[in-house]
Formats: sequence, C-alpha cells, structure tokens
Amino acid sequence: MTDQTRFELPQDRIPRAWYNLNADMPVPMVPPLHPQTQEPVTPDFLGVLSPMALLGQDVSPDAEIEIPEPVRDIYKLWRPTPLFRAVRLERALDTPAHIYYKYEGVSPVGSHKPNTAVAQAFYLKDEGGKCFTTETGAGQWGSALAMACNFFDLGCEVYMVRVSYDQKPMRRHVMESFGATVFPSPSTNTNAGRSLLEQDPHHPGSLGTAISEGIEAAVMSNGEKKYSLGSFLPHVLLHQTVIGLEALEQMDMAGEYPDVVIGCAGGGSNFGGIAFPFLRENLRNGRQTRIIAAEPAACPTLTRGEVKWDFADVIGMAPIVRMHTLGHTFIPPGIHAGGLRYHGMAPQVSALVESGHIEAVAIDQVDTFDGGVQFARSEGILPAPESNHAVTAAINEALACKESGDEKVILFNLSGHGNFDMAAYGKHAAGELERYEYPAGDIAEAMTRLPDVTFAG
Amino acid sequence: MTDQTRFELPQDRIPRAWYNLNADMPVPMVPPLHPQTQEPVTPDFLGVLSPMALLGQDVSPDAEIEIPEPVRDIYKLWRPTPLFRAVRLERALDTPAHIYYKYEGVSPVGSHKPNTAVAQAFYLKDEGGKCFTTETGAGQWGSALAMACNFFDLGCEVYMVRVSYDQKPMRRHVMESFGATVFPSPSTNTNAGRSLLEQDPHHPGSLGTAISEGIEAAVMSNGEKKYSLGSFLPHVLLHQTVIGLEALEQMDMAGEYPDVVIGCAGGGSNFGGIAFPFLRENLRNGRQTRIIAAEPAACPTLTRGEVKWDFADVIGMAPIVRMHTLGHTFIPPGIHAGGLRYHGMAPQVSALVESGHIEAVAIDQVDTFDGGVQFARSEGILPAPESNHAVTAAINEALACKESGDEKVILFNLSGHGNFDMAAYGKHAAGELERYEYPAGDIAEAMTRLPDVTFAG
Repeated sequence: MTDQTRFELPQDRIPRAWYNLNADMPVPMVPPLHPQTQEPVTPDFLGVLSPMALLGQDVSPDAEIEIPEPVRDIYKLWRPTPLFRAVRLERALDTPAHIYYKYEGVSPVGSHKPNTAVAQAFYLKDEGGKCFTTETGAGQWGSALAMACNFFDLGCEVYMVRVSYDQKPMRRHVMESFGATVFPSPSTNTNAGRSLLEQDPHHPGSLGTAISEGIEAAVMSNGEKKYSLGSFLPHVLLHQTVIGLEALEQMDMAGEYPDVVIGCAGGGSNFGGIAFPFLRENLRNGRQTRIIAAEPAACPTLTRGEVKWDFADVIGMAPIVRMHTLGHTFIPPGIHAGGLRYHGMAPQVSALVESGHIEAVAIDQVDTFDGGVQFARSEGILPAPESNHAVTAAINEALACKESGDEKVILFNLSGHGNFDMAAYGKHAAGELERYEYPAGDIAEAMTRLPDVTFAG
Repeated sequence: MTDQTRFELPQDRIPRAWYNLNADMPVPMVPPLHPQTQEPVTPDFLGVLSPMALLGQDVSPDAEIEIPEPVRDIYKLWRPTPLFRAVRLERALDTPAHIYYKYEGVSPVGSHKPNTAVAQAFYLKDEGGKCFTTETGAGQWGSALAMACNFFDLGCEVYMVRVSYDQKPMRRHVMESFGATVFPSPSTNTNAGRSLLEQDPHHPGSLGTAISEGIEAAVMSNGEKKYSLGSFLPHVLLHQTVIGLEALEQMDMAGEYPDVVIGCAGGGSNFGGIAFPFLRENLRNGRQTRIIAAEPAACPTLTRGEVKWDFADVIGMAPIVRMHTLGHTFIPPGIHAGGLRYHGMAPQVSALVESGHIEAVAIDQVDTFDGGVQFARSEGILPAPESNHAVTAAINEALACKESGDEKVILFNLSGHGNFDMAAYGKHAAGELERYEYPAGDIAEAMTRLPDVTFAG
C-alpha cells in the first residue's frame, strides 16, 4: 500500500526491554555529587528519595533492561503509539523531504510522561512503597504520575504551584479523578511551605518551592513516601526509550530510515526517548543520523549555557551534576512551554552535545506557535507548546531541504497534544504572545552563582 | 496472541462506503414537513441550507454510499480508530462479561464529530460552495467543522453561545487555530441576534438562538454560505456509520460478536454510527444483538418523550418531523453533557425505538460521572460527559452479567475524551454535581405546545 501514512505496531511488539545508553556512551561520565559534601552521591543518600531499582538503573552498564510485565500490561492501554508520515504537511511546505512524527499524545493524559510514571510506580510498589510525592507546574507530569499510582494502588501527593492550582485547575481535576491528593504549593504541610506562607499568605509559589515541598514531604515521612521526578535522571530517559525503539521498527515498516531525528528538550526525557535508540545505531552500526535537540530561545540551555558543575534544582537541595546550565538561580521567562523552563539538562544529553554527537537549536516562542498552527492546519493535531519546538525544528529542516533539493527523511517526536494549552494558542492568534530576547544578562548573573566544586573525579 | 486488548485496522481498511440504513428500514418513515406549509419539504427549501449531495443522501435508498477519496484521505489522519477490550475494567467489576469499546476520541478534535464534518465540507467544496455557517455550544461540533473547512479551504462561521464564548474559550481557540471565525451569539450579524441584543446587550445566548443565527446567516448570503448541522439528519448518521463498520471488522479480529451494543444518544449521530451496522446484521442476518441508546435522565427523550410531530429546532424555523420529543420548547436542565441536551431525536432512531428494534435507558448525571471515573481508573481515559452515559450503561450491563453469571459480549462507543470537560469532573469530585429529578412538569408543559399537524402521509 503506497499511500499508507500511519504505521502501527501490534501490542506484542511493545518493547520487552528499555535501551540503556550507559552501555554505549562514547564519552566518560562523572557521577553526581552530594550537595553538601561534594562527594559522589551514595544509595544511602538517594535511597531516602527513590526506589532502589531506579537507582540501580541509573548506574547500570547493561544495554537492555527488561520492562516488567505489569508495566507492559499498562503500556498496552496506549502503546505502541502510532508513527505518522505527515504527507499533508510535506505538500503544504512543498518540500522534497519526507516528514514522520511519532505521536505520544495518544496516551490517556496526552503526553509521553506516563512511560516513566508507570515504571516508577511499579518499582515503588514492588519494593513495598506506599506513596509518591512530586511537584507539578501546570500538571502534565502530575497527571501522569497520578494515573500511574492509581494503577498500582499507591498514594500520590502532588505539590502544584499555587498560581497554576488556582488559574489552571483542569489538570488538577485530572489528577484528583485518579485519586491523587493535590496541594497548592506553598502548603502548610512542610517547613519550606510554611516559611513562605508566613512571609506572604497568598504566595503564588514556584516550581522550585514545589520541588522542595515534594522532597521534604518524602524525606520527613520515615520511609512512608518516596519522591518521583519526571525528567532529567538516567532512569527517566531510559524508560522513555520505548518511544525510539518503537519508532525504529515503524520506520522500518515505512521502508525508510531517518537522516534527522528531532525532539524538544527541557529536562531531556522525551528527547532522549526518541533519540537514544537512533544514537545507538549511529554508535554501533555506522548510521549517520543527525540528532537535534530543540529548545526555547528564552531558556537556551544547550545553545547558550556552559558545561559546569551546578545544582540540579533551583534551591541547592538536589545533587550537583556536570551539565549544560544557565545557572540554577536563572529564572526563565514565562513561556507557555512550561516543561522546557529548566536551567539545566540531563547529563547524558549534555555530554553528547558537548562531544558533538547531538546538535541543538533554540527557537523563539512565537515561531514555535507559528509552526504548531501550520502543523495543525495540515495534520489536524494541535501540539503541546513544548512539542511545538520539535515541530518547528522539523519544519525548518524540511524548508532547508526545499532550498537544497535534498529528499531527506525527518523524524520528530510529537510528545503531546495541546488540549490543555489552548489559552496559549488564543494569545498567539490574538498576537499577544511575547517574543523573548535571549536573556543574556540574567544568565550571566546566574552563572556567577554556581557552586564552587573541587571534585576531581 | 491471547492477551491482545487493542484491535487496529490498517488504513486501507477504512470503509469505502457508508452504510445507509434507509435500505433496510423495517418500519415506514414519514417525510419532514415544511414548518409553515406543513407539506413535505422539497429540495428547493432545503437547498438554500444544504449541499444537494447531502439532501440526496437523506433520501437515498442505496445500502452503500461511496466515501469520496478526498474524505477517506482525511479520515486517514485518525481512522481507523482503535477498538479496545477493557480487561482492566472487567477485572475491577469482577464480571464474566467481555467489555469492548470503540474509541473515537483519537480524532484531532477528540470526538466522532469530524466523521461527518469532513464529509460535509467535501460536498460543499465539490458543489462550488465557499463557506459553512453553524452553531456550537461548548464547541465540540464547531471545532470539528472548523478543522474540516480548513482542510478544504472553506470559510467557517461559528455562532457560539455567548456564555460559553466568554467562560469556556478553549474550544474557541481550537476553532480559531483552524482559521474559523467565531461569533458570540447573540451577535450583531443577524436580525435574530440584533433583536435579542436590543432587549439585553449582555444576553447570554442559547443554542436555539445560535441555530437561528447560523441559519439566517446562510439564508441571507445569496448562496455564498450554507448551513451545517452536526447531528440528527440522516446524512449525519450515515457518515457516522464508519464507526460501526470498522467495529464489525474489529470484533471479528477479536473473535467475538457483541450481544449488546451501546451508544449515548442526544441527536442520535454517534449512537447511529455505532449501532446501525450492527442493526443491519440483526435485520439481514438474524443476529439478535440488543442495541441500547443511553440518554440523560434530565433530558429523557426516548424513555419519557412521546412520538409526535414537532419542530426539529426550538424556535420553529426548521422542518417538522415525527420523532420522540419532549416538546421543542422544553429547556433541559444544565447538565454537563451539553451534546445530549436536545428535545428530539433523529427520526430513524426514534422510529426504531418505537418499533422495539432499539432499547433506551436514561441515566442520572451523577451516576454517569461515577461510571466515567470508574472507567478512567481502570482504562486511563477520562471520557466526555456525553460518552459517560454509554460507559455507565455498559457498566450496568456488565454488573447484570455478574448477577446472572452470563458471559455476554458488550460493545460501546466511547465517542470522545473529556479533556475539555474537566471542570465537570472537578465538580463531581467535590460532590457539587447536581442530580436532576425527571423534569415531568416542564415536559408536560412543553408537550402542550407542539405544532398542530394534519399531514396524513
């Protein structure tokens, strides 16, 4: 069938193992350091926060890590996700390029996030845990974890930035429908929250504060609760590789192989998910696919940041890691792609950008929405603001092919739909969306506040 | 593979023809009447509003009506939709029943509505039309038509009930992203709108007013614009039969045949879409599948209405049809399943309920959300409030099987997701959702206002 545009794998082709990039890393990695002692972190320290199985995955050298059957069983509710060829977009762009997208928005909560949420919930349950705490901004990650905890009959305690809790209650209702308990952050549950509420009873909160509360709630629970993170960590990227592993098979069904693979990058998880399996083919089998991380111009971690030791969180409670950073005190402008507003980057992604195995591009918010609307008018789907970065990078690559006449094969990860982000589309249509200049001064200032690390490896 | 729970058809199995129930109707049908003359309506009258091809389909006796290739080409963006077996729900209910659901929420706008919107836009374009007008409440239908008109480079003018336009702007932004023009109704574009605004400059609008505006805008356009309707009419139900035709094949893949088929019913289109192909098997091939329409207790057209001649719209501009009605002046309580708040019913569905070929059940709003949350906690998807009626009817059938020990096969149409309806889930979780008593008095009053029709057939 020559006019096929959707490539579906049957459920028995859901990958049986995640792909662990540790096995093929072409550059040496340094360990994360304890925020106070600056010595490499130990399971003793991290085990208070995370299930041990996840800590083991972070440092495992095995190329394949088996996906537990109960996790695959839940993946079956939406996986394998479809791969589409965007023929209508190709026609609209009048490009010789072939554009494919892997669509993660078919998951019940509309993004790739459940791929790791379900895995994390499984391991917590497996180790006798009772409850996860986490933070969420607008609620994309919180709703994924809420669904996952529900499936394993675990508690789920979400600290949601108060301004989102009040103004964007839709995803809160999703979380509560799955039985999660959602607290506006700052809350009265924690010291961190109480001290802010003392200063200002109507404190709007921030992601940094919500993280502090989630961590504190886990640390102070005497082992009753663990803390879950939805991006950045090696095990999170590992779990997301189901995306790229499926896409490898689906590209094969389509009879093509990508010259370019694109994902948007905030903490690095959906990017790593699509990219790492194709990177494996580059590293092992001599493929020469260009792999591109698309980030916001307003938060240009990979394109304007420096590779330094810095805190993974904004308040200095989390480990210090070596990565591209804009400085942990840098507050990105309020772009709608909230999932990409992060000062750092997953260390694996960072190291590979530094070594030249991965490219990075930064795109302005207004341009990403232009791309998203063009995509929707061709393909129907209105993407999430984060995904619009990948969409627009793919469009730019396709337009370059139009210039050059190259018939390249471009694959990007459409990590989620924009159903909960239509207010941003409304602002874009009304011409009210801000174009952010590269915040050079703020970044320079934040870069003066990095921790002074003497660790020599 | 014994544990398969998703049944996917390849794109080349998108049906090549819709199924036209006219060919197999086991009971005689009467024509719609002109609202003034009370004579059967003619193409002259309706042609001002509708593309001729659609009027032809309404009265066609052919069992199969070919789906034009450009329509199938757009269907490929999301069709065939998946059929799932809800094994996790079965386990939660501890029922011997096998529960299947056809999931139409994978369409870009999240419901079954584009199945007919795309077809209608194709025919309008094919006949040289330029623009569709329509009305929308919260925006489900409007966003489907906006997307469809975008694909065929047609204008799309949507009259959106003002209170929704102001309070629920999310789907408005979807429509505008597809290039549609959305007017709050009442608007200053029409006589109907202007006269209401003169009475009250802040008039909140109603679906009845929005319909009047959409029709008036088409009628007064000198043929520049036609009017599109998203349910009720035979051609709309015809286009929706792709749902049931695919489901027939997918049940075959699953190796089962449904004993019960369930859809929610407002105007009748998603219900007819899933039901008519299975009804065909009952009528032609001796199958004895029970076919159940699930409606709101607050608007119990099929279970408490009477089969009478009544206006299809609330203001007496549309044709008079013979159908189950609660009286065209009956205003249903403000349930969240806005798509089911209609006083009448598609005449085909009505006639078959009257003849006993189709059953009907009415379910209270609170119970439907209980069912929807139970479904989500098992299957992940939070359904649209309309779809929750089908979900809950299916759960009730499965629980009856638990009582009786019958291993019945139940299929229902999950017509859309609830991403734009989370406020209603929030109210449900907070215990603030109203339980509506059967509005007997209001219905009795409205039934005194039916048109006095002498047409004898």
